[in-house]
Amino acid sequence: MSPILQGTELIQFLENNSPEKIKEVLEHVHPADILDALEDYEGNPLLILARIPNDVLVSIIEEAEEEDKNDLLSLLPHEQKKEVISEMASDELADMWEYIDEDEAELLISAMEESKAEELKALLQHDPETAGGIMATEFVSVSDQMSVKQALEYLQKHGDDAESISYLYMLDIEGRVHGVVSLRDIVTSKFDVRLSDLANPNVITVPTDMDQEEVAQVFIKYGFSGVPVVDEAHKMVGIITADDVLDIVVDESTEDIERMSALAHGEREYLESGVLNLAKRRIFWLLFLMISATFTGIIIEKYEVALSSTIILAAFIPVLMDTGGNAGSQSATLVIRGMALGEISMKDFFKVLYIELRVSLLVGGVLAGVNWLRIGLTSMHEDKWLLGFTVSAAMFVTVMIANLVGCVLPLLARRFKMDPAIMASPVITTIVDALALLVYFGIATSLYIK
Amino acid sequence: MSPILQGTELIQFLENNSPEKIKEVLEHVHPADILDALEDYEGNPLLILARIPNDVLVSIIEEAEEEDKNDLLSLLPHEQKKEVISEMASDELADMWEYIDEDEAELLISAMEESKAEELKALLQHDPETAGGIMATEFVSVSDQMSVKQALEYLQKHGDDAESISYLYMLDIEGRVHGVVSLRDIVTSKFDVRLSDLANPNVITVPTDMDQEEVAQVFIKYGFSGVPVVDEAHKMVGIITADDVLDIVVDESTEDIERMSALAHGEREYLESGVLNLAKRRIFWLLFLMISATFTGIIIEKYEVALSSTIILAAFIPVLMDTGGNAGSQSATLVIRGMALGEISMKDFFKVLYIELRVSLLVGGVLAGVNWLRIGLTSMHEDKWLLGFTVSAAMFVTVMIANLVGCVLPLLARRFKMDPAIMASPVITTIVDALALLVYFGIATSLYIK
Repeated sequence: MSPILQGTELIQFLENNSPEKIKEVLEHVHPADILDALEDYEGNPLLILARIPNDVLVSIIEEAEEEDKNDLLSLLPHEQKKEVISEMASDELADMWEYIDEDEAELLISAMEESKAEELKALLQHDPETAGGIMATEFVSVSDQMSVKQALEYLQKHGDDAESISYLYMLDIEGRVHGVVSLRDIVTSKFDVRLSDLANPNVITVPTDMDQEEVAQVFIKYGFSGVPVVDEAHKMVGIITADDVLDIVVDESTEDIERMSALAHGEREYLESGVLNLAKRRIFWLLFLMISATFTGIIIEKYEVALSSTIILAAFIPVLMDTGGNAGSQSATLVIRGMALGEISMKDFFKVLYIELRVSLLVGGVLAGVNWLRIGLTSMHEDKWLLGFTVSAAMFVTVMIANLVGCVLPLLARRFKMDPAIMASPVITTIVDALALLVYFGIATSLYIK
Repeated sequence: MSPILQGTELIQFLENNSPEKIKEVLEHVHPADILDALEDYEGNPLLILARIPNDVLVSIIEEAEEEDKNDLLSLLPHEQKKEVISEMASDELADMWEYIDEDEAELLISAMEESKAEELKALLQHDPETAGGIMATEFVSVSDQMSVKQALEYLQKHGDDAESISYLYMLDIEGRVHGVVSLRDIVTSKFDVRLSDLANPNVITVPTDMDQEEVAQVFIKYGFSGVPVVDEAHKMVGIITADDVLDIVVDESTEDIERMSALAHGEREYLESGVLNLAKRRIFWLLFLMISATFTGIIIEKYEVALSSTIILAAFIPVLMDTGGNAGSQSATLVIRGMALGEISMKDFFKVLYIELRVSLLVGGVLAGVNWLRIGLTSMHEDKWLLGFTVSAAMFVTVMIANLVGCVLPLLARRFKMDPAIMASPVITTIVDALALLVYFGIATSLYIK
């Protein structure tokens, strides 16, 4: 079943109904659908926003992409903006904070409740791409001496304020977690059971400075719906929930895919990016790689004399370059993705190298063989078998070099704290092209060119 | 905090403790950690498995990758296998079923309770990559006339059997969902509140035949932790939970990344794949692309005479091919990822084309300009400015063609029900290379070669 109201129908509904009716119906419309309708709306969004109750506005703004939250917020009159901000979760505020200008930010902080302002300032200390940067500070802590019934009564009073109540945490006097009980265990147990009988003392936590990609790996491995975040003193300072992680996994994959295709990261969706922005994201890497590729040209120039006497050699440059590039990008991709998923690490360096060496012998052998046969059987040249052997020998060596370069560079990138995804297809191809031509002309001048 | 027991320590613990002690401690060890320890264990796994209680075995097998579940199960004696299977969730059984041989499958089905066997058979009707293929059939349905207290008492009795109790569903007499209430709303409301006052009548559902990638998009958009699955008659037949979706998002991204680098999909992690398997995943596309690239060679052969009189032209073949390939793979990547995330669809065809046309004018202009200057300022040739102009004109046209081919092919692939990710870097590069050389020699013979 699709949503009851969406798109223009939703807008029309908002335009034509009383505040009471709107309040009643919007309770059952998902904020993501209202956001979609607003984004597609061509008129003045202020007219529509003015008809939406504050609590729904809060959900809509929380639903929006980080870079869009402030755009929505800035449409509101100052008083309403303050009200909406006072109802927003602290982690949502922190997410949008970098998009607010300084004067505005100070004004808003001074209008906040003091405890909230403190919380926000604490959150802003963390790198946005770490556990501390994505956590929410609203979690539920309980005593393990409570009964199930007492816990439920506690949730009836205080559960609304928490980001997630899927897990309740037991803290010691220093604020360190010493137990966790899931809401599921609570509601499937009799009212008089003690939480201490349900609690798991083995709580897996993540430190505030853990990279968000590693946080995602914890969720992928354990299938948790929430994980506590602790500071250096092991004090629990927040929680991260599974729905945050879903967004992170999508974003990190998108970023990796973009890097692997020599694209700078973009904040906005393709269709909403604008031509200038899309061009900017491409031009740096294209220029860099174009300049790099001129070295390959220099190699050809160096062999100009050899080439002009046996011009047929030029015909095999593309197939050598392409095959080398493809082989290199295959092994680079496997290693990059393996590292992103936590399956390969630096300690596997020589294991990976040995695997790629053997794979390249197999793959290079097959490719060289097929290539030799094809040239031998279809070429018109009189010395076609020797010509084919020359090209195929170069191909074999090229594939071997490509596979090794393809696996070594991403591993080295990680070693030097760079994103391995940078060392993908485009960079590998450019390097392998130059090496392939060196090998090709090296073999050709000793075997083929008299 | 890391897990209390993992790796070899965990194995040693299992080897050296009494069944009672093991049972007590394993309750607090996450099955993912036991699975990890088992996978790294070099000895006979049977000795370790025999020391693990059945209910923990069930969680371990459920935790394992689809293709590994049966390997673990087949280590158990037949009687124990039957017991473990009878405790496994129906969707987990369905996931591993394709890896079990037919005789074994029939034997196991005949040993199951009839209702469970029926459920499993029903699940096996669905394509494993659709909503029906990933859903679990164990969900909680309640009457909206219940009070919060009654709902909690109902969960105390029946909650344990469900896959997830994050949402409770209200079904009409035909089994169609007409309301949903979240566990969170239940436990934060007073005991005497009626569920009808908490229920949301606007339930978003997915049909059994929806592709898992689209299901993931629903979760990403709405941030749900569970979604009901309905059959053609809108009868609710199962639920999908957020942790299933996290795995799907990771798998789909990995598959896309692999396809985009001309790799066949692999079931196992890189380090556990084996050399032969890794070679197999690469060889088909490498061969296909190698044969395709020979057309590019044929174009060069065709211009052999022109080339031998002006051999300097060969030096610019690599930079033209590389830049064209990079530009094409950039636009292909943006379009492929945009489609995977549901941001671009076939109806945007002409919009995308128009965007890429303008981007290519900008990007191609800058690249051609820089390239002309570089050749003009650094080349030793006497007619270097004309040479530079020839190469740069070819580059400009090549980038334009590359961007258009790069955006059109993935869209066409989707149109013909193929995965757009196939039309990525390697295929685009091969096509663009041939076109680039045609353009280059076309321009060179009319402008440069006398």
